[in-house]
Amino acid sequence: MDESKLREEKISSENIFDGFILHVRKDTVRLPNGNTSTREHIMHVGAVCVVPVTEDGRVYMERQFRYPLDMVISEIPAGKLDSLSEDRLEAAKRELLEETGLTAERWTDMGDYYPSAAYTNERLTMYLAEGLHQHGQKLDEDEFLNVQLVPLDELVDAVMRGEIADGKTQAALLKAYLILRGRKY
Amino acid sequence: MDESKLREEKISSENIFDGFILHVRKDTVRLPNGNTSTREHIMHVGAVCVVPVTEDGRVYMERQFRYPLDMVISEIPAGKLDSLSEDRLEAAKRELLEETGLTAERWTDMGDYYPSAAYTNERLTMYLAEGLHQHGQKLDEDEFLNVQLVPLDELVDAVMRGEIADGKTQAALLKAYLILRGRKY
Repeated sequence: MDESKLREEKISSENIFDGFILHVRKDTVRLPNGNTSTREHIMHVGAVCVVPVTEDGRVYMERQFRYPLDMVISEIPAGKLDSLSEDRLEAAKRELLEETGLTAERWTDMGDYYPSAAYTNERLTMYLAEGLHQHGQKLDEDEFLNVQLVPLDELVDAVMRGEIADGKTQAALLKAYLILRGRKY
Repeated sequence: MDESKLREEKISSENIFDGFILHVRKDTVRLPNGNTSTREHIMHVGAVCVVPVTEDGRVYMERQFRYPLDMVISEIPAGKLDSLSEDRLEAAKRELLEETGLTAERWTDMGDYYPSAAYTNERLTMYLAEGLHQHGQKLDEDEFLNVQLVPLDELVDAVMRGEIADGKTQAALLKAYLILRGRKY
C-alpha cells in the first residue's frame, strides 16, 4: 500500500489536561478508510539521556525511585528539556553535570528514541559521553538518586538477562557497547 | 544512600482522565526529605512486541502511521494486552498473527521494557519468534499498516545510524541480534 494511504487526518482536538509534565489531548481523526476514530495522546517537551563512559569502560549509572513503577530502578543520566527550543546537547551537558557532577570532552550523538509512539510525541536524544571529569553532583533540592560506577560489559549482560527495566537505558547501553567495541560492531 | 531513602509515598491521587488507552492520574507524594510534590502519570494496561525472524535472518517489519509523531515509522509487530491479566505470550501470538499473519514454532522471552518510567507504568514484554509460518494477515477494520521483510543486519545498521525512531524496536532488534549471533554475544 502507498504510504500516503496510511495517514490519519486530524478533525478536532480536545484539551484534556495541561500539567507540569503531561499535556493530554484527545483528538478525533479521519482514518484512511474514511471512518473516524479518537487518538488519546501526550504532548511532551522532549528529553535527553547520556551514557557516560570512563576510559576503563565503566558507566555512571543512577539508582532512582520511579513513582509510576513503585520501584527503584537503574538508569543512565537523563532529563527533560527546559523548553521545546533548548539545544539538546546543551541539555545533555546540564543534566549530566547536575545528576553526576561530570563534564565530558567528547560527545557522540547516538540518535533519537521515541519511547511510546502510539501515545506520546516524546523525543529523547541519546548521547555517548567520554573524557569525563568530576566536579561534584548538583542535585535539585527535591531530587534524590544514587550514582554508581558499573563496568559496561556487566551492564550489557544485565540488559541481555532482562535485568535493566528502563527502555532508554537498554537501547543506549547496547548502542554504546556496539559503538565502543573497536568503534565498529 | 540507603535505597529505602529514595522512595516517595503517595498522599493522595486525583483522577484526571479515563480514556480508551490512557488513564491519567495526578498524585501528591511525600518526598524523602519530607517535602510534598506532585506526580503526573499514566496507568497503562501493558503491551508486547515481537521480533519475527526467518531462517535466513530477515525480520517482518511494519510501516505504520503514528499520530503523535505525525509520521509513518518502522516498527516490529506489537500491541496492547486485552486486559491486565492477559497472558503476555498469548497476547504476543495474537498480535503477531493479526498484524503479519504469522505463527511461530519457537518463542524466546527477551525481557521487559519500560518505555518511560518517569510518567507511565507501561510494561512491554519483548519476544523473539522463530520457525515462522504464514497464514494471512487479519487486521482489524480500522487498522492500517504495511508489512516488509528486511534483513536483520540491515536493521541493526539502521538502528546504529539512528534511522529507527521507535524505542522498543531499537532495543528489541539489538537484543535479537546479540542473541542470534551464534546464540552468544
